[in-house]
Amino acid sequence: MASALRVLGIDPGLTRCGIGVVDVRADRSATLVHVGVARSRADDPIETRLATIAAGIREVLAAHRPHVVAVERVFAQQNRHSVMGTAQASGIALLMAAEHGIAAATHTPTEVKAAITGYGSADKRQVQTMVARVLRLDALPTPADAADALALALCHAWRQGTAPQAPGAGALTPAQRAWADAERLSRR
Amino acid sequence: MASALRVLGIDPGLTRCGIGVVDVRADRSATLVHVGVARSRADDPIETRLATIAAGIREVLAAHRPHVVAVERVFAQQNRHSVMGTAQASGIALLMAAEHGIAAATHTPTEVKAAITGYGSADKRQVQTMVARVLRLDALPTPADAADALALALCHAWRQGTAPQAPGAGALTPAQRAWADAERLSRR
Repeated sequence: MASALRVLGIDPGLTRCGIGVVDVRADRSATLVHVGVARSRADDPIETRLATIAAGIREVLAAHRPHVVAVERVFAQQNRHSVMGTAQASGIALLMAAEHGIAAATHTPTEVKAAITGYGSADKRQVQTMVARVLRLDALPTPADAADALALALCHAWRQGTAPQAPGAGALTPAQRAWADAERLSRR
Repeated sequence: MASALRVLGIDPGLTRCGIGVVDVRADRSATLVHVGVARSRADDPIETRLATIAAGIREVLAAHRPHVVAVERVFAQQNRHSVMGTAQASGIALLMAAEHGIAAATHTPTEVKAAITGYGSADKRQVQTMVARVLRLDALPTPADAADALALALCHAWRQGTAPQAPGAGALTPAQRAWADAERLSRR
């Protein structure tokens, strides 16, 4: 397989935290590496729930050693009952990246939809269908949180830029440099 | 010194995270153990900032070994620009407690004000003045985040109940049981 950028996508949540890992090559083609969900029990204390989510993310980081972690950006305007728990889970996800020495990035839901389907107001089903097609899956990934995590990972790789240049081919943009670095790492 | 409940209070924040440790005895008297602020640089990546806050909290946990961690509860309604970062920092604080096997609790700003001053709409200055008086400090603790962390810690101890009963003195409430357990632990 050609060298690829391995991205861990995280759709943060306390009850279900979607976790997906994909390998994305410079030609934008992608392969599923891992998909799953870390769950915590609603009747556990909040600190236990966050530790459960942290353990689920750590496990995937250790097993699949991604080059970068992409986390959905949470907004206060998403005025759901659960938004504070979602923000806390996103903090845990970003901390796990930092503590493993892995770069992290956040993307908004609109950025993810635009990157995957071509338009920012796509519905969830359209995003899932596209994710399944890109990764050549027989069925839509479920639950939705798992599909969203894969979409985030693909979004991150595709937004980073997909055409690493040969050394000497001119100055690299920061995104291209990140890609080139990640490629080099993946060859070790 | 009589056996005391050692509480770590945390006023979560990304730029400044207030951290205070107090020993509170059954007669509600209290002693300052530690007060400080974990700071992170606004121009660092978010994952680095969260890791900096985590390191600051871990240091205090290791140095002072509290029985319980009290964290200010963050609300989405606090529609400040920084509310998501505050929520993420609170998630980190709760995770640090869980990973050290220490119980955690959250209290609202209104609960803290009521516990410290006797009324829930007290202003910040009144809370700080009372914290300084209770802990017999020569000056108001600064910055405000540090004072708020001490107030949280005192609030937690006082709300837990202050009169641990001797075994056999009757059924204990959950709060009294927690206190008695903490007292036992502190005698080891």
